[in-house]
Amino acid sequence: MLVLAFISLIIGIGAIIYGGFTARWVLKQDPGNDKMKEISGLIADGARAFLGREYRTIFPVGALLAALVGLAYYIGFHGSFLMTFLAIISFALGALGSGLAGYIGMYVTTRSASRTASAAGRNGLGGALSISYRAGSVMGTMLASTAIIIISILFIIYTAITAFWGEALIPAAFGASLMSLFIRVAGGIFTKAADWGSDIVGKVEAGIPEDDPRNPGVIADNVGDNVGDVAGMASDVYESLIVVMTGMLFLAAVFRVPDNFTVFPFLASSSALLSALAGMQFVRGKVKGASEALKKLNLSLYVATILTAALVAIGSVALFGPSSSAIAMIISDILGMLTAIAVLHITEYYTHYTHLPVKSIARQSTVSASNVIVTGYSYGLASAVPVLLVVATVLGSSFALGYRLINLSSPLMSGIYGTAAASVGLLSMAGIVITLDSFGPVSDNASGLAEMAELPPNVRESTDALDAIGNTTKATTKGYAIASAGLAALVLFIGFVYEVVERVLPPGSSPSLILYTAFTRTSVMSPDLLMGAFLGAVLVYLFSSRTLSSVSKTAMELVQEIRRQFHEIPGILEGKSKPDYSKAVDIVTRHALNEFMLPGLLAVIAPVLIGLLLGWVTLVGMILGTILLGFPRALLMANSGGAWDNAKKYIEANYEPSLGGKGSDAHKNAVVGDVVGDPFKDTTGPSLNPLIKVVNTVSVVFAAAIAISDILLHTQAGLFPISNFIHLAFVILFA
Amino acid sequence: MLVLAFISLIIGIGAIIYGGFTARWVLKQDPGNDKMKEISGLIADGARAFLGREYRTIFPVGALLAALVGLAYYIGFHGSFLMTFLAIISFALGALGSGLAGYIGMYVTTRSASRTASAAGRNGLGGALSISYRAGSVMGTMLASTAIIIISILFIIYTAITAFWGEALIPAAFGASLMSLFIRVAGGIFTKAADWGSDIVGKVEAGIPEDDPRNPGVIADNVGDNVGDVAGMASDVYESLIVVMTGMLFLAAVFRVPDNFTVFPFLASSSALLSALAGMQFVRGKVKGASEALKKLNLSLYVATILTAALVAIGSVALFGPSSSAIAMIISDILGMLTAIAVLHITEYYTHYTHLPVKSIARQSTVSASNVIVTGYSYGLASAVPVLLVVATVLGSSFALGYRLINLSSPLMSGIYGTAAASVGLLSMAGIVITLDSFGPVSDNASGLAEMAELPPNVRESTDALDAIGNTTKATTKGYAIASAGLAALVLFIGFVYEVVERVLPPGSSPSLILYTAFTRTSVMSPDLLMGAFLGAVLVYLFSSRTLSSVSKTAMELVQEIRRQFHEIPGILEGKSKPDYSKAVDIVTRHALNEFMLPGLLAVIAPVLIGLLLGWVTLVGMILGTILLGFPRALLMANSGGAWDNAKKYIEANYEPSLGGKGSDAHKNAVVGDVVGDPFKDTTGPSLNPLIKVVNTVSVVFAAAIAISDILLHTQAGLFPISNFIHLAFVILFA
Repeated sequence: MLVLAFISLIIGIGAIIYGGFTARWVLKQDPGNDKMKEISGLIADGARAFLGREYRTIFPVGALLAALVGLAYYIGFHGSFLMTFLAIISFALGALGSGLAGYIGMYVTTRSASRTASAAGRNGLGGALSISYRAGSVMGTMLASTAIIIISILFIIYTAITAFWGEALIPAAFGASLMSLFIRVAGGIFTKAADWGSDIVGKVEAGIPEDDPRNPGVIADNVGDNVGDVAGMASDVYESLIVVMTGMLFLAAVFRVPDNFTVFPFLASSSALLSALAGMQFVRGKVKGASEALKKLNLSLYVATILTAALVAIGSVALFGPSSSAIAMIISDILGMLTAIAVLHITEYYTHYTHLPVKSIARQSTVSASNVIVTGYSYGLASAVPVLLVVATVLGSSFALGYRLINLSSPLMSGIYGTAAASVGLLSMAGIVITLDSFGPVSDNASGLAEMAELPPNVRESTDALDAIGNTTKATTKGYAIASAGLAALVLFIGFVYEVVERVLPPGSSPSLILYTAFTRTSVMSPDLLMGAFLGAVLVYLFSSRTLSSVSKTAMELVQEIRRQFHEIPGILEGKSKPDYSKAVDIVTRHALNEFMLPGLLAVIAPVLIGLLLGWVTLVGMILGTILLGFPRALLMANSGGAWDNAKKYIEANYEPSLGGKGSDAHKNAVVGDVVGDPFKDTTGPSLNPLIKVVNTVSVVFAAAIAISDILLHTQAGLFPISNFIHLAFVILFA
Repeated sequence: MLVLAFISLIIGIGAIIYGGFTARWVLKQDPGNDKMKEISGLIADGARAFLGREYRTIFPVGALLAALVGLAYYIGFHGSFLMTFLAIISFALGALGSGLAGYIGMYVTTRSASRTASAAGRNGLGGALSISYRAGSVMGTMLASTAIIIISILFIIYTAITAFWGEALIPAAFGASLMSLFIRVAGGIFTKAADWGSDIVGKVEAGIPEDDPRNPGVIADNVGDNVGDVAGMASDVYESLIVVMTGMLFLAAVFRVPDNFTVFPFLASSSALLSALAGMQFVRGKVKGASEALKKLNLSLYVATILTAALVAIGSVALFGPSSSAIAMIISDILGMLTAIAVLHITEYYTHYTHLPVKSIARQSTVSASNVIVTGYSYGLASAVPVLLVVATVLGSSFALGYRLINLSSPLMSGIYGTAAASVGLLSMAGIVITLDSFGPVSDNASGLAEMAELPPNVRESTDALDAIGNTTKATTKGYAIASAGLAALVLFIGFVYEVVERVLPPGSSPSLILYTAFTRTSVMSPDLLMGAFLGAVLVYLFSSRTLSSVSKTAMELVQEIRRQFHEIPGILEGKSKPDYSKAVDIVTRHALNEFMLPGLLAVIAPVLIGLLLGWVTLVGMILGTILLGFPRALLMANSGGAWDNAKKYIEANYEPSLGGKGSDAHKNAVVGDVVGDPFKDTTGPSLNPLIKVVNTVSVVFAAAIAISDILLHTQAGLFPISNFIHLAFVILFA
């Protein structure tokens, strides 16, 4: 069955080559006049400088963690140097891939904005779309294929050299999610602090419009769009894909399922990648207006979905024969893909201006800013409801399908495998979804460039129309990323419990016994578990609070700097002298990098410490609490933020003239909501995705150490090892 | 051991008599001049009219539910008319007591405001404190003693006539929590809609100050303070006390513990009530300033706590002899009381203006309204963290104590019993805490009256100083109420699982077997349970969203009415003609009562339906999800709301003159936060307490029916009965 991993590898490499050609085509396009080149260069430099410094800041922490991962494996595998080595390799490759996904995405998009603006000038909307969409597709293909290549290479090599290849793979998921957490948090703080800071002094105090080149923060603001929306989203979705693939392979390894079941993730993900490449070809040719552009984009999504379903169906019959297992795997995979489409539509309903929620918020803005906040928050809460229902339904029904139809050695395993197949199906859509998402930031930046380079108004019209579509796809992709994170986390959660129980039990226990013990020890009636669940809630709340306050702290630093420049550089407001853009970028970079380490490390240290000191059952509770609180909260924050943003735009675009349009009191009230929504939707909300996965992956990686500590510390405490009050006191002091 | 129940009954009756005398003393005081009497009469009438209509609206629903409760018991106890009858009696008494607690509280406080204002005119702060504190103590004593009397009478009678007295008691908890949910939601919508509506037209559009008699909404606003802050809080805490007492008695009955363990809740609650009466005596005599007043209030709390601890210690030794059980019960009870004090202090830190959070929010208001919102929200999230840690610690350590030291037939039971003792300890403080809370609304109303009746400024100074203390105690009591709800819900949660498992197992199974099965069937790895946990999240989000939007909807109706009156009644703004206050009250009443039924019924119907259709394990997950998401969310919403409120007051009081004081831009920004916080802290936040308990209590009441449906529907489905897709589709359509 190794052949399927090889086929995946080849498809992945093929996709990379396709992506490379597309990138070359994009970069060959006319980058516009000198002014555009200059500004575009400033943004690209700022973004590169930020990512560079960020990666350098992360490096020592990453190296230390790599050493700890190695140590954990050295102990867990009784001094095996091979496992230690493989674990470190996996961790490094996972993290590297995540960093790479972010970097490639940024590289292409920062260079495509000027080319999109210039094409908009020559060929209008269609020209702009063809370039920005190609740029987005580079990111989508690169990200999915990097993930597939890394996992298939590791799989091919590891299965050849060790029986514990499942455990050896897992650190890749930890590396990817850790890197993604850092990128999300740091990028999220950077982008929103730059945005807030520039707006507060620019719009409010100096009275100059957004994207005005006289504002010293304007380049930082544009850099932020790239490091937040592009690099952040790329590493986030890359990571979910890695997590769900390693997670399912890990389950396959520890459950000791037959080979044809093992390689299913390769079938699902490479089918989807191939189909995504096909779907992308439908966004070509002349485009008359925004609605036709949206139609083409949707067409590409549906073509890719149907094609994937067909390929998975054919492949599954080839793998499992015409059996009930094949039927269950196919349906589960399709259920996962349908989840993606459902979540995209739900999110669109709650964040797009053609539907009731955004309109209601806009109308409430005629009353007061408080009404805007409360109404938006209320819709944000409501928006999580259908997504949770869809995910709960898919979870339950894919398990039930597997339980009844898949033929593994125990029905429990079969059920879990059904759910895993649905998760892989959902995540396999990453390539096409990210493609849809990424043209948004490109056209957003193109609009900004057009403004800064003072291009004729028709350019801005085309790029703005694209930006409006991009805003919707951006919001909906966030919904997709969150739902993916939720399901991926659940698969890994089960993997963790299994792994730790296997290590607590005597060596050589059968998978069925392990599963049975796992079920009986993790009751929600156990006070250990309940306590852990509360600690999970603590983690989510603390992390959310901290990331929110970091944004305002960093923004205040930028405000000081912009005020200083306005004050000390004469003629800056008259446009006679240039502001010092790079100083502003530097300040935001420095503070964002100061702020991101603490919440990031909290996510790594808390689970390990809780597991070591309070036992693995408490840790299981903590993971559950993190998923249960983090998942709905991410939806709430992303969607209320998106809705506030679009309510403001709805008033600005004057779709409802009675609201008064730009500059009216209603508009001012809507701006309050928009600004509140910024850190909600671009910092804290999206950072919760990697948070719930880091908590999971770090637990699996340290499962051996946690099991050993459990055995050492608590052998005499019976079922409930919490009675050690010193431990409790320690936890409280720590948190 | 029945003697202890009798002693409780006598203490309860004694306390009621004491409360009656205190009430008579308060009502004998001078109610002030004619204008004050008139306004005070209008408020009292409005409040009575609201409660009256509310109770009439609830009555048919309550009657229907009483019939369903009876039916559930008729089926569950195989046609026993006695059990059917007892269940209905319990349900009715529980609900009646809750309604009564709300009504008595309102009756006294609405009548005490004018007396407090008049005493403030004669004797300054001290005079005002002595009346408002006595009025508050009436509510505190009445509420605690009503709960104790009802439970002890039911206990004495039921234990004499049926072996299933534990099951017969439980509907009292359901009745109380259901009534409290209705009162919280309806009162919360009323109070904040009246507040918003009056402010939007009054302050913003017409430019008249708060509490100005020219505003047609002013009486509705004051009525709202009483139906929300007083009746709502009274029924909420009364209900938690009932729930935790019935919950622990229920556990005692189903665990078949010895009698001395059974009667412990009576010891704890009557000791605390007696001690509260003693503590109250320390708030007497002359008071020079606000800080001395606060000192006396705190003294009363500490005296009551220490005295309770001493009484419980003596009583426990008498009950259990000098044994390890006695030690564990005493320490657990004290841990519960310490939790109360810890939560009061934590909440004070996050909501009082002398500490960093409120100051930071006030300072951010110089930047923008958005900064106020984000900073307040971030502190709200942070405020939940220490409370969750305290509760998790108490949960874990009281269980561990019980597990090691209490001698019941199984260590699991002993552990659970330890946690139950801590919960009872926490709730036993209700009397003294509510006393501390209730003088706040009285002095708040006295301030309003002084404004409306145009009393001399020195009156307002005294009542305002009291109101400022009252604002803090009001916020801290909310924290107490939430923490109590969390622990009470956990006790009941375990009771539910036990009850339903007992009914799923063959009759006559031993308690140990039942407990063992309960543990093995409720694993967090079960997809049923995970799905249920997501459904619990759905419930909390849907309920929160719905209650928030109800407030703004109702407020808009009041806005229309006030605008109409300003328009159609000539001379109203010049003070020449009187506004039609009662019309405004009527409109808010009508709409609040339209809006409260849906979220209330959702909380009752969802668990029963989920339990019947998707099985009891899914329901266990749902209850867990509701507690896990509802508890932190209640803290977030109550505390961010309190902090925003006090940040605004901090600026108004001009504690930091650089912020600009009343009327400055900073003040305007702070007002945005204050108004957002209103429905957060007074509608949705406090309604989440009864929500998590209704979900619990309704499940216990319908446990038999759910168990039967489980056996009928799912006998062939093995461990996981979720495969019925029709059920899933049904649930989705329903939600």
